[in-house]
Amino acid sequence: MIYLKNDYSEGCLPEVLDALTKTNLEATTGYGEDEYCLDAANKIRAVFGCPDADVHFLVGGTQTNQTAISAFLRPWEAAVGTHLAHIATHETGSIEATGHKVLTAFAPDGILTPEMVRDIVAVHDSEHMVKAKLVYVSDSTEVGTIYSKAQLTALHDCCRELGLYLYLDGARLGSALTSPENDISPVDLPQLCDAFYVGGTKNGALFGEALVIVNDALKPDFRYGLKQHGGMLAKGRLLGVQFGTLFTNDLWFNAARHANTLAARLQDGIVQKGYKLLVPSPSNQIFPIFPSELVEKLSEQFAFEVQSEENGFTCIRLVTSWATKDDAVDAFLAAI
Amino acid sequence: MIYLKNDYSEGCLPEVLDALTKTNLEATTGYGEDEYCLDAANKIRAVFGCPDADVHFLVGGTQTNQTAISAFLRPWEAAVGTHLAHIATHETGSIEATGHKVLTAFAPDGILTPEMVRDIVAVHDSEHMVKAKLVYVSDSTEVGTIYSKAQLTALHDCCRELGLYLYLDGARLGSALTSPENDISPVDLPQLCDAFYVGGTKNGALFGEALVIVNDALKPDFRYGLKQHGGMLAKGRLLGVQFGTLFTNDLWFNAARHANTLAARLQDGIVQKGYKLLVPSPSNQIFPIFPSELVEKLSEQFAFEVQSEENGFTCIRLVTSWATKDDAVDAFLAAI
Amino acid sequence: MIYLKNDYSEGCLPEVLDALTKTNLEATTGYGEDEYCLDAANKIRAVFGCPDADVHFLVGGTQTNQTAISAFLRPWEAAVGTHLAHIATHETGSIEATGHKVLTAFAPDGILTPEMVRDIVAVHDSEHMVKAKLVYVSDSTEVGTIYSKAQLTALHDCCRELGLYLYLDGARLGSALTSPENDISPVDLPQLCDAFYVGGTKNGALFGEALVIVNDALKPDFRYGLKQHGGMLAKGRLLGVQFGTLFTNDLWFNAARHANTLAARLQDGIVQKGYKLLVPSPSNQIFPIFPSELVEKLSEQFAFEVQSEENGFTCIRLVTSWATKDDAVDAFLAAI
Amino acid sequence: MIYLKNDYSEGCLPEVLDALTKTNLEATTGYGEDEYCLDAANKIRAVFGCPDADVHFLVGGTQTNQTAISAFLRPWEAAVGTHLAHIATHETGSIEATGHKVLTAFAPDGILTPEMVRDIVAVHDSEHMVKAKLVYVSDSTEVGTIYSKAQLTALHDCCRELGLYLYLDGARLGSALTSPENDISPVDLPQLCDAFYVGGTKNGALFGEALVIVNDALKPDFRYGLKQHGGMLAKGRLLGVQFGTLFTNDLWFNAARHANTLAARLQDGIVQKGYKLLVPSPSNQIFPIFPSELVEKLSEQFAFEVQSEENGFTCIRLVTSWATKDDAVDAFLAAI
Repeated sequence: MIYLKNDYSEGCLPEVLDALTKTNLEATTGYGEDEYCLDAANKIRAVFGCPDADVHFLVGGTQTNQTAISAFLRPWEAAVGTHLAHIATHETGSIEATGHKVLTAFAPDGILTPEMVRDIVAVHDSEHMVKAKLVYVSDSTEVGTIYSKAQLTALHDCCRELGLYLYLDGARLGSALTSPENDISPVDLPQLCDAFYVGGTKNGALFGEALVIVNDALKPDFRYGLKQHGGMLAKGRLLGVQFGTLFTNDLWFNAARHANTLAARLQDGIVQKGYKLLVPSPSNQIFPIFPSELVEKLSEQFAFEVQSEENGFTCIRLVTSWATKDDAVDAFLAAI
Repeated sequence: MIYLKNDYSEGCLPEVLDALTKTNLEATTGYGEDEYCLDAANKIRAVFGCPDADVHFLVGGTQTNQTAISAFLRPWEAAVGTHLAHIATHETGSIEATGHKVLTAFAPDGILTPEMVRDIVAVHDSEHMVKAKLVYVSDSTEVGTIYSKAQLTALHDCCRELGLYLYLDGARLGSALTSPENDISPVDLPQLCDAFYVGGTKNGALFGEALVIVNDALKPDFRYGLKQHGGMLAKGRLLGVQFGTLFTNDLWFNAARHANTLAARLQDGIVQKGYKLLVPSPSNQIFPIFPSELVEKLSEQFAFEVQSEENGFTCIRLVTSWATKDDAVDAFLAAI
Repeated sequence: MIYLKNDYSEGCLPEVLDALTKTNLEATTGYGEDEYCLDAANKIRAVFGCPDADVHFLVGGTQTNQTAISAFLRPWEAAVGTHLAHIATHETGSIEATGHKVLTAFAPDGILTPEMVRDIVAVHDSEHMVKAKLVYVSDSTEVGTIYSKAQLTALHDCCRELGLYLYLDGARLGSALTSPENDISPVDLPQLCDAFYVGGTKNGALFGEALVIVNDALKPDFRYGLKQHGGMLAKGRLLGVQFGTLFTNDLWFNAARHANTLAARLQDGIVQKGYKLLVPSPSNQIFPIFPSELVEKLSEQFAFEVQSEENGFTCIRLVTSWATKDDAVDAFLAAI
Repeated sequence: MIYLKNDYSEGCLPEVLDALTKTNLEATTGYGEDEYCLDAANKIRAVFGCPDADVHFLVGGTQTNQTAISAFLRPWEAAVGTHLAHIATHETGSIEATGHKVLTAFAPDGILTPEMVRDIVAVHDSEHMVKAKLVYVSDSTEVGTIYSKAQLTALHDCCRELGLYLYLDGARLGSALTSPENDISPVDLPQLCDAFYVGGTKNGALFGEALVIVNDALKPDFRYGLKQHGGMLAKGRLLGVQFGTLFTNDLWFNAARHANTLAARLQDGIVQKGYKLLVPSPSNQIFPIFPSELVEKLSEQFAFEVQSEENGFTCIRLVTSWATKDDAVDAFLAAI
């Protein structure tokens, strides 16, 4: 079975495993206050150009979103995202579990616009309704698209004007930033976002996400929330070691670039054979549409997710990663 | 610096790291539904003699307690524990964060008794108060003591009579079960508890706890709670690989036994030199009381936690683990 | 200023005030356990034909919905309603505040259909998403429409089949049940719903809603939730006295009928003058569309809510109640 | 049966009922934004000498505590009170239901001291524990005692120094302020507290509490929390009418003074007959201790609460109110 199912099917980059192995028997202090975490945080501050940001390491994306958003909002404040937003669809109501509504706008390409935000804010104009306060975007998005710098800047300006926080879910930020179509630089992110996270799980780490809090107002006492949501790993240094390695010698960027290259080859090949896409993707998730019979046949050889089915056609999701091999792309293109 | 600070200062047992390395590049399905998790769950069911139990793997203890207790209780139901209970003191209100009160009884030796439970239930006798519903015990306890089979059986009987669940926090269950003073067999636990967890983080895993749900009423839909609390690891197989290894060839038991042996040698040596203990401990956490000046001097060479200070004396906590070396014990005993 | 703004602009029916006055100096036990509450609960059980139902009295609608829904659901379970559902729009996220997501289907006429429910359930098919568990309907709906017996029966059957609870928000149940177009009998409700509430605030009481729990599984320990959400009124008898009065001599029904009659005359008059409606309403809330200039002029003489504005036209909401006078209707019709 | 059971056994002061009756058919805007609420808020600001305070009207005490405390705290912050604190004991975990722990100190006389607060803050010194942030006091306390100005000032100073909010539950504030032993003036309260509430339910209103928010930092967006917790009464003017009446011609003070006078006569008579008290009370709740046989006999003629039983003696609670008659006191003294 060839896995094109997701970017967390394998363990981690060999360099990451080596670093964990080398440091395995060292004794360090716990809970993310060790030297490895301090070093990794500094590397992230340097790469993203935000020397004053707070950096916290968490285990997974749902946990990071839940911990951050619940720490940032007052009880009646709500998050705003697209109808595809991961927090709105695939995190089992984890934001609501902390008391907050997620307001959504229909956006088939996964890109949230200032107009959508303005419409939602305009409707929520009294204390009988929740108060929109935090804008949630994913880059790359849930359907593989990415934000342009102009789009993210427009959202930032809109948020600033309306008194909203801008929070970016970077589960697949590596893929976004290394996409050929991307014009956002790592150092742009702290200028545009109040907080964002740098995804490790889906880009070469065994696990782990690095939350970067830029806005001073959101920094105090965050570690209380971290602990309260079970996000303060006893052996915190595992996260420090991994992120320190990922942000040495561009490992994190190169891993993502590899995934993008293979995804682009896969997508181009599919289009050349005359198949349609849900939406063209410049990142490591692509969404081709095949006759349902073909999909059934493909599923014997390949592991992938089914996105939707309609009228004899099935849209599937193919995901590449640092671990995907050229052979897998060749085999898939040969099979269609 | 010699670490006697906790049992999560190092990484993991070499065998665990080997297993992670060997399986690193295999592609598996995510979220704990892979073959490694299934296998590890079966091994745990076998060791603890509960073929029908549900086994879920989580990353850490706070997360496990929070996810389990919030899934088991209705909104107004409360947990009952000692005043030292980890959920009552050192988890940043994570149980309250899910809406539930933790009721506590004063128990300097960390052991909860049926009388304490009965007293709390008796007081909480109307809908103007929370309803006591789940009894929380830690074995070993927060001060290193362990439950006898008679004690745990008495609690079980009391819970059964009063309609309460009995939940056991097994962060240091390995140390408890391999203590020379222990008379509880692994297969007793499912007979006595509605749910319990088998600690990995503090006994040789990189991270991870295995929650065992015995009571059928508590099983349905638990994975929803797992996901909602960020406890469903994308690369769930990391947990399966680790627990599968720990429960092969008694690795988990042997690691704990090693820690206990060193702790006993440490405690005996301390007592022989005429120092007092907060409470005698048969497990891998010990609590000696030294003159405060001596503690200050020790802290130059050894890393440990301070428990309390009074009248020129300081109670410290020393913890041994699978990674602690004989030399460390020798050095400590030489230093006092 | 003539109020057509809502059905809670005035105090209460004179009969209700008389009853409160007559019983004012009696001493009773508190918290809803007095004779007046017992009597009122029995009257409600008799009128709605559910001798075994539990009846609880609460102060307001948001409180009732929040207390009921949070008591009925497990942490990851969600409510399902239309996009107009009061719990989804105008209760400041009170359901989310207790941890539960509200899933919505677009329904401009306010009527939820089994197809909408099925679609939502079909999409939410894994533990990565919330679990749809409770269907929320309002009768009359937020736009004045009412359910037919066939519609409510179809929803009931769908809920039964899918394992969902059916909960009916009866803030304006009096208006629905006494509408000329209504074919649901009071005694049908317990056959079709797992729980519903009988609105007092908007139909002649000073305040108060009576929650009727039919499904045995939802009954235990509900009073704990009542107290926890601040819904257990110290002088609970105030609610008992009011509902006992409302359900004597058909007072509650007659009050609603009066409101409906005036609303119908108002709506008919408006239509006869050539104006359009958002949707024809058979109940005490109507939604005419007027030129915006006319609305501005009307607002000098009449108090009402603006629903929406578009292209020079404004849809307003007019609400009649037990307290509305014929003169008010005459004046409004004269003014347009 | 003569009621000495609580101060909410009857309806309301005749003046309050008259005011409700007179205004019954007036139409006003809803949700506490009517003229009666504005007027009542101004009267309260004048009486308590806080022209800039925000005043919100709620229905009951549990609701007020829950709404205020959950609005004031961040997710990991905790309230601090005595072990008798109403929020810790008799509100069914309503604070925990909003995610916050209640930390308690043992205080048999119901008075919280700065030392108790300091001890709790000292223990909670890391992000592994909740962060103490709000001090909760009741005046009069749960056992009838009252704070002196020196005591409340000391708490205020301690809170200021430690960065804590001071919140005063005034369910029985009328009784405290009119006690012969009281030296706190109404205008002292806003100088000493960040927020406090003025109890109506237990001092002559049908229902209602007036929350006074003094600290500017706690004011923004509070009405969202009010609505979210079901505390925004549709016919908000009912609260305005009541509080406007209570704070006209010293009605609220006189009602409380009456209750205190009778309670003092009752307590003095009991003591003169040689019986002991749990603690001497200068307010409208007294706690005499009688032989249990006598208590049983008294219960045939009088309604009261039993506080505790021990060794053949029973401590009971007797409560007087605006509605208690001299005859009741005479009868009780005659019966013992």
